[in-house]
Parts: sequence; structure tokens; C-alpha cells
Amino acid sequence: MSVPRGPARIEINEVAPRDGLQIEPVVVPTDAKVAFLDALSACGFARIEATSFTSAKAIPALADAEAVMHRMRRLAGVRYTALVPNLRGMERALSCRPDELNLVMSASETHNRANLRMTRAQSQAQLLAMIEVAGAAGVPVNVSLSTVFGCPFEGEVEADAVMALAGAFAKAGAAGITLCDTTGMAYPSQVAALCQRFRQSLPQAGLTIHLHNTRGMGLANALAAWQAGVTRFDAAAGGLGGCPFAPGASGNVGTEELVHMFEAMGVDTGVDLGRLLGVVAGLPALVGRDIASQLLRAGPRLRTHQPPAWLAAHFAGQG
Amino acid sequence: MSVPRGPARIEINEVAPRDGLQIEPVVVPTDAKVAFLDALSACGFARIEATSFTSAKAIPALADAEAVMHRMRRLAGVRYTALVPNLRGMERALSCRPDELNLVMSASETHNRANLRMTRAQSQAQLLAMIEVAGAAGVPVNVSLSTVFGCPFEGEVEADAVMALAGAFAKAGAAGITLCDTTGMAYPSQVAALCQRFRQSLPQAGLTIHLHNTRGMGLANALAAWQAGVTRFDAAAGGLGGCPFAPGASGNVGTEELVHMFEAMGVDTGVDLGRLLGVVAGLPALVGRDIASQLLRAGPRLRTHQPPAWLAAHFAGQG
Repeated sequence: MSVPRGPARIEINEVAPRDGLQIEPVVVPTDAKVAFLDALSACGFARIEATSFTSAKAIPALADAEAVMHRMRRLAGVRYTALVPNLRGMERALSCRPDELNLVMSASETHNRANLRMTRAQSQAQLLAMIEVAGAAGVPVNVSLSTVFGCPFEGEVEADAVMALAGAFAKAGAAGITLCDTTGMAYPSQVAALCQRFRQSLPQAGLTIHLHNTRGMGLANALAAWQAGVTRFDAAAGGLGGCPFAPGASGNVGTEELVHMFEAMGVDTGVDLGRLLGVVAGLPALVGRDIASQLLRAGPRLRTHQPPAWLAAHFAGQG
Repeated sequence: MSVPRGPARIEINEVAPRDGLQIEPVVVPTDAKVAFLDALSACGFARIEATSFTSAKAIPALADAEAVMHRMRRLAGVRYTALVPNLRGMERALSCRPDELNLVMSASETHNRANLRMTRAQSQAQLLAMIEVAGAAGVPVNVSLSTVFGCPFEGEVEADAVMALAGAFAKAGAAGITLCDTTGMAYPSQVAALCQRFRQSLPQAGLTIHLHNTRGMGLANALAAWQAGVTRFDAAAGGLGGCPFAPGASGNVGTEELVHMFEAMGVDTGVDLGRLLGVVAGLPALVGRDIASQLLRAGPRLRTHQPPAWLAAHFAGQG
């Protein structure tokens, strides 16, 4: 049996500043957020999701969205995106000159209601209206579809329902669609099948995959997506993030572990792993807790160790 | 691009009783070890590595190897194996009627010296002598080759050196060879390439792959090995295990996460996941510490949750 290689180059969208910090129990001060973003900017990401223009009541941790967008330093070559949940958020975001906006709804009815307090039909109508407004403002829009590989309330989610939503948004002018494994229910053959179907049905709709490591399959699913031809990956430094509706759910796939795997395989991610690990090393201080990064603990695979001190003497004179 | 499926059925060798317990700081009482083994036997594993016949001085935690082998209940259909480091250990093991014996040496010189206090040449000669003794006793032998995907002291390990060792042991009559990623340095394309080469060069030498999750790639590497046709996997319940020479190295790939992934993909592992998760839930009490099993925390992917209590009232009367 042959094991296929995927694309020679992938792009990473770093989502920790939004998807990670929104769920942390601590509110990170604006200065620290800006420093975090500036440090990430220097790592070589294609995209960085900087913040979310949601209500301060819903997510107090990101109440400083405008200040963050205005104060962060923008590097050429990096696209700075922001999540916008509704038209009010979109107005606020557009005043901050985003390179792109990210809209979100769920593929499953119950998760959409629980997460967004709207039916799927209501969310879809609202997102279509938002795509029109963004289009008039000349800002490209990406739509992130949550729970496409499974819903923590409903279980399996039909691929037909996912593709119908993706098709509707692509037709309406969305520049990209993200398939999100919101609570880590995806498995590799499922990821490969849905990504292949998406790329065949909607070859023009820029596909991104968003994976969680909740059940340990984050990198296995990334491998399957890459083998299926996917070139754009969401990831969060340090594996920050999670989902409030899935008890025990750990966070996003860790950017440093994703970069480490793909770079080991000779895939160009554009990201400077050493620099990124420096940023990840600062995360416990930023969020006030230990983080789950195994790579941070173990180091890159070729960082070698000293043999035990007794070894040289023990084998003195031997071959 | 197409994403290949691997074999429809795989076999799992559960190594936690040996590879896990040998490195735990607590010495698990014999009664508890026997209960652990009996619980594992009921899960449906093809093989269980029950203990190691090493010196009590080197590994006090496994000093009760004979008692464990005699007292555990053997289920038909399960092959009970034991690790033996030398001829003295093999004599002890053979008195306990093992179904198979597992020998070990490293593919890299420095790791072999540090771990076994012998040169590779010394280890190879000793293992060849042991294969002869076991053959005379009619007990099949498996040879586990450590550090085949990288050495924590030397870095990259040449595939040619690995294949030369594997070929020598296969020729000498070893019934199986295990390629071990001792400190989690393997990456998927490397795993696939070495497994493909092994299966082409040594189609009769039963290949097992032994993976660690040190850098988050455990299941990604398992996926790649499966795609390359591998049917036999080592794994440790709860992800127990590790390597004393690789600081920060976490344990073996967790059996429950390996089973969960492959069963989700429709691959028959023979293992009852629910029963196994029950055993894993008891591990913190057994080893006196938290364990790293993400699947134990999150539950299988289709274990759904109740929606928030406010949801029904909020959407009363809506579609």
C-alpha cells in the first residue's frame, strides 16, 4: 500500500489570540495581547485571527477588540482577520481595517442554538446579509462551519448538510470556508472523505480545516486532511482553546506541534518553529496556567541530550 | 489526491503492565498487577506483555515477574509475552510458560550503551544466542528494536542500520520484529517509508510498530503505519510509559486512543473500548498519579451531552 504525500506547502492561520483567549478564565490585558500578536506576527503565519468583535457582555475577555486591532503592528505578508458574530460586530470590525473577516455558524441545529442562540435558518440568513455588507466594503469573508464532524449534543452530522451550507456561502461570495471539528469528534478517514468531497464540489472555495485535539487525533486528522489536498490549517499556539459545551474537551491542535510535524515531513509551513516555541514558552505567564504543549516540554525531535556521565568511563577501551 | 485505507483488521499488543509499570515511581503490589492483567485480558487484546524478567536491582517494580506470570489468568486467544534482557532472564521466563518472549536492543549505539550497558555488537550477539535457546525451547521470539526513528543522544538513525539489524534477527529465526519510536521522534512520512521498506524486504518477519506520543504525533504515526500496511501495534493503556533518557518524554501511545481512532474508521481491533476505558479509569489509583488520557476525560466521540437547560424555553414555538 502506498502512503500519499499532500501539498508541498501549507498555510497556517494562528487563532490563539481569538479562539484561545476568549475561553481563558483570565482577562489578558490589552498590552499583553498586543505583544502576543506582535510576537506571533514575527513567526511567519499566513493569517492571524486577532480578535472577535462580539459584545463585551458575551465575551469580556475580548472587549478590547478595537484597541487590539489598532495597536498591533501589521507585518506585510500576514493577513489579519477577526471574527464577527453579527452586523453590529461587522461595523465595528470594518472600522479597524481587517484584511478578512471570519463569520461562524454551526452545521448542527442544537449546537447553533446553544452557541449562537439562533436557529440555523436565522444564522444562515444573517451570515448571507453580512457577506453582502462585507462585499460592499471590499473585505473578503471566510465562513467557519462548526461541528461539521460531529455535534456534542446530536452526535453524527450529515455531510450533506455541511456541503449544503458550504455551497450556499460559497455561492453568496464567501472567499473561504473553514470546516471545524469544534469538539474533537473527527477521525482521519472522515476528515479525508469530507475534505475530498469539498474540494471536488467547491474547488474555488478556499478550504481551511480547523481541528481540536480533544481525543488525541488532532495531528492524525491534520495528516489525513493534508493527504486529501488541504493547504490551509487553523491552529492555536500552545493548543489553547476549547468548547464550553463539551466537558473535558481540550483545545485546538497546537500550532507548534502542527508545524513540527509538517516541517519534519519536508512540508513548508512558512513558520519559524524556534521563534514560535519561544512565544509558546511565554503562554503560561500570559494565561496564568500550565499549557498542554507536549512539544514545548520535549523539544523538537532533533534536540539531542547528553548521554549519562558514567557512559564514557564504562566503555573506555571498547569499540 | 487519494487517501488510502490500510488493513481491515489490526492486532494490539498491550504493553502497560511491562513498559508502563517499569517506569512508575510506585511499586504496584503483585495482587494489583494480577488484577490489572486479568482486567486487560478481558478486553480482547491479541497480545499482552505481562512483565519483564530483569534483575530486581535494575527494575524493582517488576521483581515479582514469576508470581505475576503464575497468578494471572490466561484467556484463550490472548498471547502472553514477557520481556527478557538476557539469558538469565530467559531461563526464568521459560519456567513460566510464556506464549512468546520479547528481546530488546537499540538501533543506535549510544542509546544501546546507555540503556543496556553493552555495545550494539555485544547486544546483537547476545540476542542471537537467546533466539537459539528460545527456539530450542519451542517459544517464539520477538525482537524490539529501540530508537529506530531517532536517538535522543545521536539524532537521526540510518534506516540502513535498522534494516540490517532486523534482517539479521529475522534470518536467525525471530518470529517478529518491533520497530520502536522510543522517545517519540518519529514523524508520519518516516514511519510510512520505513514500514514500507521493512514489509518489502522482510515480508515474512511479523512487523509490529511501537509508538510514543512525546511530540503529539502518536496517532498520526499510527495512521501512517496502518496506511503502509502495518497490522500489529504496541500500545499502553492510559499512555503509561516513557523513557528515562529523554527528559520530558511522555509515554506510549494510549491504547484507548489508538482503539478509538481505528474503530471510528471501521477497523477491527478486537478490543472492547468501553471495557478498556473502565480499566483506564482505574489507572490513577493503580499508579498513584493522574494519567494523560485525553479520551478518558472527553469520552468516546459519540458520547453526547445534554444541551443547556435554557435552550428549550428560549426556542419554544420556533422551528
